[in-house]
Amino acid sequence: MDTMDAALAAARERRDTQLEQFRDLLHIPSISTLPEHKEDVLRTAAWLADELQRLKMDRVEIIPTKGHPVVSAEWLGAPGKPTVLVYGHYDVQPVDPLDEWESDPFAAEIRGDNIYARGASDMKGQIFAQLKAVEALMNQGPLPVNLKYLLEGEEEIGSPNLPDFLDVHKDRLACDVVLNCDAGIHAPDVPAIVYSLRGLAYYEIEIQGPGQDLHSGMFGGSVHNPIHVLCELLSGMHDEEGRITLPGFYDAVRGLDSEERALLSQVPYSDAEWLAMTGAQALDGEAGYTTVERVGARPALDVNGIWGGFTGQGAKTVLPARARAKLSMRLVADQTPDEVLPCLQSYLEEHVPEGIRWRLEEHSKGPGATMDRKSPYMRCAAQALQDVFGRPPLFRREGGSVPVVGLMQQKLGVDSIMLGFALPDDGIHGPNEKQYLPNFFKGIETYIRFMASL
Amino acid sequence: MDTMDAALAAARERRDTQLEQFRDLLHIPSISTLPEHKEDVLRTAAWLADELQRLKMDRVEIIPTKGHPVVSAEWLGAPGKPTVLVYGHYDVQPVDPLDEWESDPFAAEIRGDNIYARGASDMKGQIFAQLKAVEALMNQGPLPVNLKYLLEGEEEIGSPNLPDFLDVHKDRLACDVVLNCDAGIHAPDVPAIVYSLRGLAYYEIEIQGPGQDLHSGMFGGSVHNPIHVLCELLSGMHDEEGRITLPGFYDAVRGLDSEERALLSQVPYSDAEWLAMTGAQALDGEAGYTTVERVGARPALDVNGIWGGFTGQGAKTVLPARARAKLSMRLVADQTPDEVLPCLQSYLEEHVPEGIRWRLEEHSKGPGATMDRKSPYMRCAAQALQDVFGRPPLFRREGGSVPVVGLMQQKLGVDSIMLGFALPDDGIHGPNEKQYLPNFFKGIETYIRFMASL
Repeated sequence: MDTMDAALAAARERRDTQLEQFRDLLHIPSISTLPEHKEDVLRTAAWLADELQRLKMDRVEIIPTKGHPVVSAEWLGAPGKPTVLVYGHYDVQPVDPLDEWESDPFAAEIRGDNIYARGASDMKGQIFAQLKAVEALMNQGPLPVNLKYLLEGEEEIGSPNLPDFLDVHKDRLACDVVLNCDAGIHAPDVPAIVYSLRGLAYYEIEIQGPGQDLHSGMFGGSVHNPIHVLCELLSGMHDEEGRITLPGFYDAVRGLDSEERALLSQVPYSDAEWLAMTGAQALDGEAGYTTVERVGARPALDVNGIWGGFTGQGAKTVLPARARAKLSMRLVADQTPDEVLPCLQSYLEEHVPEGIRWRLEEHSKGPGATMDRKSPYMRCAAQALQDVFGRPPLFRREGGSVPVVGLMQQKLGVDSIMLGFALPDDGIHGPNEKQYLPNFFKGIETYIRFMASL
Repeated sequence: MDTMDAALAAARERRDTQLEQFRDLLHIPSISTLPEHKEDVLRTAAWLADELQRLKMDRVEIIPTKGHPVVSAEWLGAPGKPTVLVYGHYDVQPVDPLDEWESDPFAAEIRGDNIYARGASDMKGQIFAQLKAVEALMNQGPLPVNLKYLLEGEEEIGSPNLPDFLDVHKDRLACDVVLNCDAGIHAPDVPAIVYSLRGLAYYEIEIQGPGQDLHSGMFGGSVHNPIHVLCELLSGMHDEEGRITLPGFYDAVRGLDSEERALLSQVPYSDAEWLAMTGAQALDGEAGYTTVERVGARPALDVNGIWGGFTGQGAKTVLPARARAKLSMRLVADQTPDEVLPCLQSYLEEHVPEGIRWRLEEHSKGPGATMDRKSPYMRCAAQALQDVFGRPPLFRREGGSVPVVGLMQQKLGVDSIMLGFALPDDGIHGPNEKQYLPNFFKGIETYIRFMASL
């Protein structure tokens, strides 16, 4: 039995222990966007640093940033082997609407084959599986590959301090390739590798009409209602074909050639499944593109939140002074956040009615990324998935944004291998987030095989 | 010195005492829409009942309803004189946004010539001035008129129990005319009588898209975003001319003839003043009508509140399951709430995209009303205003809704005289609501003159 097989067997034997330890990690509510959870974010960093110490990593450090810290570690005892920088984030999204959760988001309740918790899929489950793969390999002798770790605590708030961190710690992070575990597969039995990610540009718009809230009976129909203005602006951002109307927005969008459309058409997809997964009763989107193309290869604009006026119980006859919306755009190659911001500004300058004051605030931004599908690292990842799942992975474009992938390309000059085991219906960012446990264990095995084969 | 002059003199002498007592009344936060203020609403009813006892009224009662109670009383010691039913409401609006108030909304702080408090103008100030007028007259001998009181605690939530109350207590409330104190004048030195009020129909719309909140990166651009749908629906409710597009909405609207347009054109009005009063930087509204006509004689539709998705600090990349809005229409003769509801329903049926679920809830409704400008009661009110202010009142149409006026017409068969002293810039329903004290005292004198002259 070689090292890899021994590691696989060892990992399988420890599943109960792994699960108990995973639940410990999930119990900590490391919500990075909420100040009241700052200590919980720190506790999670400490938890991971302890774990990395137990795995006999060197230079284990919790490195402060202006926000939440980075957990860093390395093990460089495999001369002649490549150096893999493992990337993950240990922070999680807020849990609202809390009343739609069937169990406490941090109780990590197991129901059937799933474990339910905020962060179970996005992405404590993926980090933890990778660590358990290292544990299993380490118990068989020296690791077959050099490892470095960069586990950040600010991904869910747009990684505001990561660009600086990469600049400052460029040498510490030098590597041949990044193993980015913030990734998923297509379906429980259908592995996939994402080779392209959408970028993100996230803004908040404030519209002010009257100087203060007014009585809607006395003044309704005589001055602009800022909610009406906001609704008009937002609804004008798409045309009837589902295309985004911001001037110049599509200028840098790279079209799909027939080879890539053919590749994407192989991604198993059915309308019925998509509807079941989302709970929507109809599809929508840009005319002329399939759903797979719409979410992977085409940009999108979504209002993520809107509020204004009276939103309590009952009725208040107010014509409010202000209305606000949070608005994000998903960008595809070769769009950049800095190029789409002027498109949004031009649109607002052109369409905000006279006498209405507006303000635009940038909340976060990150570049998209497109990777070489044929690199040796990509081939090792594909083979590991094939060995564990019994079929080769699909190659996919991902609708979500993992801005760090583009950042790593820019700052460290390396591609990322997106290897993680989240499922599309895991409910990440929503209520009842889960991790499908059979794939959590397959994930550990895949990471073992990937590291052993490099 | 006759009774009236003696009463006027007595009222003037007691101004300091009146003001102190007024502040007591304003200290009680009788917010009818918020369950946590239920006891405060009751305390206010008790305060008024005590005051009516002190004024030697008969049959003083706090009559329960399914919601907040009605304070009732009567004095019928003036045979041969008309019976006036005094109407008022002792409940107030919520105070949010609290951080825009310059002093505690229930501290009743006096700054300059104004007293600042929620309810100062809408309408504890008007009720209290009427009571002080009665006090001044009563101290001179028997009252010159028969009085009944109906002071309700649910006006700000749409008077849900008043129609039943009027039916059940029809005999108790029998009268010749209603003195409705929930009214205002045009400017500090320009008295006015409102002879027409807009009706109100207030709804809440819920739009549901996905079955639960989704990750906007993974799903954005592939299914309907309910915020987008809601914004499209709301922004489509007005056309480019500012006209309401709900099918059939204008069918019952009574047009303005040239005589009435001429009358309304006498209402002193300037764009600059309107802009200063609202803090808006531009006017808006239905093409072809003046501002005075827009708010008095034309219907309006306003979104009073909107909310959906993530509205906290920072960024959350969510494609929400639901979005909601509160929406109200101001109606003019001869529109009725029950006739415009189907217009809204038809609009939604026609425009909600396939696969989107929607729900409409009625929060409140009330008819508009138009009164005879030439009745004897109206003449007495006009004369009282002229005697106190030194100029005849303007006759105006009011943009706000006082549904009880229409209800009194329907249920008791009597017109209302709208006689109150609120000012257009009193900030009712908004922050820093105030009452202008010189007119509060003039109000007491006007009520004295009105009652003495009937």
